[in-house]
Amino acid sequence: MWIFEKKLEYPVRVGGPNPRLAKVIITQYGGPDGELAASLRYLTQRYTMPLPQAKAVLTDIGTEELAHMEIVATLVYNLIKDAPLEEIKRAGLDGYYADHDRALYFVNAAGAPWTATYIQSKGDPVTDLHENMAAEQKARSTYEYLIQLSDDPDVSDTLKFLREREIVHFQRFGETLNLVHEYLDRKKYY
Amino acid sequence: MWIFEKKLEYPVRVGGPNPRLAKVIITQYGGPDGELAASLRYLTQRYTMPLPQAKAVLTDIGTEELAHMEIVATLVYNLIKDAPLEEIKRAGLDGYYADHDRALYFVNAAGAPWTATYIQSKGDPVTDLHENMAAEQKARSTYEYLIQLSDDPDVSDTLKFLREREIVHFQRFGETLNLVHEYLDRKKYY
Amino acid sequence: MWIFEKKLEYPVRVGGPNPRLAKVIITQYGGPDGELAASLRYLTQRYTMPLPQAKAVLTDIGTEELAHMEIVATLVYNLIKDAPLEEIKRAGLDGYYADHDRALYFVNAAGAPWTATYIQSKGDPVTDLHENMAAEQKARSTYEYLIQLSDDPDVSDTLKFLREREIVHFQRFGETLNLVHEYLDRKKYY
Amino acid sequence: MWIFEKKLEYPVRVGGPNPRLAKVIITQYGGPDGELAASLRYLTQRYTMPLPQAKAVLTDIGTEELAHMEIVATLVYNLIKDAPLEEIKRAGLDGYYADHDRALYFVNAAGAPWTATYIQSKGDPVTDLHENMAAEQKARSTYEYLIQLSDDPDVSDTLKFLREREIVHFQRFGETLNLVHEYLDRKKYY
Amino acid sequence: MWIFEKKLEYPVRVGGPNPRLAKVIITQYGGPDGELAASLRYLTQRYTMPLPQAKAVLTDIGTEELAHMEIVATLVYNLIKDAPLEEIKRAGLDGYYADHDRALYFVNAAGAPWTATYIQSKGDPVTDLHENMAAEQKARSTYEYLIQLSDDPDVSDTLKFLREREIVHFQRFGETLNLVHEYLDRKKYY
Amino acid sequence: MWIFEKKLEYPVRVGGPNPRLAKVIITQYGGPDGELAASLRYLTQRYTMPLPQAKAVLTDIGTEELAHMEIVATLVYNLIKDAPLEEIKRAGLDGYYADHDRALYFVNAAGAPWTATYIQSKGDPVTDLHENMAAEQKARSTYEYLIQLSDDPDVSDTLKFLREREIVHFQRFGETLNLVHEYLDRKKYY
Repeated sequence: MWIFEKKLEYPVRVGGPNPRLAKVIITQYGGPDGELAASLRYLTQRYTMPLPQAKAVLTDIGTEELAHMEIVATLVYNLIKDAPLEEIKRAGLDGYYADHDRALYFVNAAGAPWTATYIQSKGDPVTDLHENMAAEQKARSTYEYLIQLSDDPDVSDTLKFLREREIVHFQRFGETLNLVHEYLDRKKYY
Repeated sequence: MWIFEKKLEYPVRVGGPNPRLAKVIITQYGGPDGELAASLRYLTQRYTMPLPQAKAVLTDIGTEELAHMEIVATLVYNLIKDAPLEEIKRAGLDGYYADHDRALYFVNAAGAPWTATYIQSKGDPVTDLHENMAAEQKARSTYEYLIQLSDDPDVSDTLKFLREREIVHFQRFGETLNLVHEYLDRKKYY
Repeated sequence: MWIFEKKLEYPVRVGGPNPRLAKVIITQYGGPDGELAASLRYLTQRYTMPLPQAKAVLTDIGTEELAHMEIVATLVYNLIKDAPLEEIKRAGLDGYYADHDRALYFVNAAGAPWTATYIQSKGDPVTDLHENMAAEQKARSTYEYLIQLSDDPDVSDTLKFLREREIVHFQRFGETLNLVHEYLDRKKYY
Repeated sequence: MWIFEKKLEYPVRVGGPNPRLAKVIITQYGGPDGELAASLRYLTQRYTMPLPQAKAVLTDIGTEELAHMEIVATLVYNLIKDAPLEEIKRAGLDGYYADHDRALYFVNAAGAPWTATYIQSKGDPVTDLHENMAAEQKARSTYEYLIQLSDDPDVSDTLKFLREREIVHFQRFGETLNLVHEYLDRKKYY
Repeated sequence: MWIFEKKLEYPVRVGGPNPRLAKVIITQYGGPDGELAASLRYLTQRYTMPLPQAKAVLTDIGTEELAHMEIVATLVYNLIKDAPLEEIKRAGLDGYYADHDRALYFVNAAGAPWTATYIQSKGDPVTDLHENMAAEQKARSTYEYLIQLSDDPDVSDTLKFLREREIVHFQRFGETLNLVHEYLDRKKYY
Repeated sequence: MWIFEKKLEYPVRVGGPNPRLAKVIITQYGGPDGELAASLRYLTQRYTMPLPQAKAVLTDIGTEELAHMEIVATLVYNLIKDAPLEEIKRAGLDGYYADHDRALYFVNAAGAPWTATYIQSKGDPVTDLHENMAAEQKARSTYEYLIQLSDDPDVSDTLKFLREREIVHFQRFGETLNLVHEYLDRKKYY
């Protein structure tokens, strides 16, 4: 189970209302390679990992991605909560507004709702860890594109922090894959 | 952010492998009215709640539903992890097995993947609380049907606990709705 | 069965071509909380209602929502049928145009196609009526956001009529819920 | 707008509870080539038809398909409403039961929820009428497969009636296509 | 099996970067009536065609649609590969960019991902050929709308070629339908 | 463009009608980690690869996956084409039969239609190659589960061939990733 702590893993500051930027960043909330996808992928795969260390890494990173989901939510919300309706229209966010006002919802930047088909969980630890390394690369790429699209240095700072964490996760999944390979090789000898 | 505590909110015990039962219970993991849907719905709505108490209730229940998701995952996993392949076939779970082995994945009992279109977040606190009261009723009904389908008393015990929690949540959302109505009425006087 | 009567439940008038407005209003045609969703939800739930009055209310409102679907269709069509292509482009409706010309199709304001996962039907009358009360609140909220987005007083007039009807439906579902509760309580005494 | 008349277009009789049969027939309620798909397809296309007769045919058939949707709903409901839970399990309908009890919901025979991507509406009358002729052929084929699967003569009788209607609709769409071709040819002369 | 030949079926030339145009043309890559849908529809239906000529036509056209998919991919890619980020933003393609950079992905013009529910395969050759004739009409209409939206004569030239091919395919499916009807009639005599 | 050659890449032989086996194998046709997903993923990513060798590998493997799609289609079709209706029912394939007769359609083993959200294309070559290595691992795992489920040695033989090819592809994507890393490192020096 999880305990909520009223604290963000990393501070969120925005330069001002910016619905245009919110519209693209939301993809890391509810898009194909976003934080929800990451968190659910790892938390659901941990049951079939053959090593306690592997289970722990998945639980650990899966839990951290929940915190990142909260960071992205806070970013997006802060970018739209005080935006005047006219600015929301100009940003092309009026379609979103019609269905969700200034609330948060799990969509990608084109408005397609999140679906579990974005993620996979195969039971095979080697396969799942490759899936996760790919997931971290995809998340890293997305943060890079968002940083290029960002015109708010405060937002970019948070996006850079999130991008760095994906690189760290990629490394940890790589190390876990080595552990699992060693374990599976060893198993064959007995 | 969330801290993981290596402990289930409620103990999970199963009478033995039972893929047939797993196949239906999984709907409370990745189905329309399951724990994932509940948790994400509340955690995403809390940003637009106008009262600190309302935000707190959503965070609180949303976090508890994460723990329920973990309970359901443990239930389903325990019901399939030692099931022989022949039993998996007889239970009609071979289609699931082909794609996921004995791992967990977010589908309903018919195998349809989870989608964010199951939930809503409208920005209007009265609307969102009605959405949540309906969600709790839908979850309660599903647990009732699962209890009827269950032939394992240990599993039924856990399902009953989960059903009770939905009723408690329904009450709390009802009380929160009253608070919000009061607040909105008061606002009109000034 | 239904008999078509060549008459709108409420007159539709528009100030002129306005694809920008059409693009958001279409969500009440094919979006998550729109008239199609409402109508299908009620018409499909009526089979499992335990009281003739409850069945009648669902049939009645489900049929009225079909009429509302027609009103929204007429609104959207009148807003785009004479719009020059350049205006359609400026409104960001060129993507829609590529697939549907100026015809009607069941999408939300972001272009996501309608899906039955927006609605639910649980067999439990208390649950279904809560689902419906929530649905009416969601529809009401959407009409409010659309009225805020509207720059055409004639269109706003129709939207206000539709919003009012949702409030009336909410009341009727509330009363039906009371009847059902009474009936279920009474059943327990015998 | 539509007026509901409390009468089925064709009588529905079933030989007894038969959840196995219900499980496949439901595809004509909420499946790709079912009555919902047909009705919505025609009712949404009528706005862009260039001839009053074409609009009338679409409205007419679209309204009749609503009546067929009601017939199929009644069939499915009568086949499951009194089925004991054990029979529902044996029929592999327990997954459906977990989410919907014995209520009706818009899915195909494999449990995939209805989606608007099953239908199209292109604005071009020649194209739309071809789409509709194909739709009627697909519905006819489905009824043939269902008749082959049926082991209840009463149910087969209703399925045969519905199949015949699809053939009639196919003819009417063919005649309407001729009218539209004539009209478009004539338009070119002036 | 297929052999790749490094050659486009028809030359692709573009007047310059034009993300706005790319955004709509992509629907013929991954949209409801696009080349992927066409190719997969025919290649999957060929197994149940009763005549060698019919199988051959489906294989033939299904393979040509793969070539068209490649043409559309090249068109879209050439229109975005050198587009500056600012132009991508102005074209409203920044949402797409956040998830895919300047790479190709299977979406319609509104960003909805491709789904197999766009196509059908019914086992009945008469039905499938009607489905295909409708598909060709839908593709033809889409190319017409794209030509209207195009402001690049080189692109329009390629779109016109593709439109013409759809008309040819429509004819060939019509002829194949006649062959199949003849064959089915003949079968009845023996 | 592609040239069709009337020859399977690997012979397909089946021991007899076996709809139960067909029902699970179909996931490698239209499921999340199947041949369609693989082929489309590689063929769409090749445009943004920075090296001619990388483009060639993607084209090459993407084209081979088309041939595998054809092998899987032939397998599935041969397993159902002569199966009596009673056997189809016993195999739980009657739901599929109601919608598709004995024809082929793109679904996973639970009947969920194929969706492009199964695949990704990010524009970043390192990311895309990791995505592809994960895809090959997922396909390999699926073939292993299918081999475990298979009770037909002829079918198992073909499944083993396909599994081996996924391992070869995994290696080739790994080598291509090295080439791309070298290239990107070199680029930084100039």
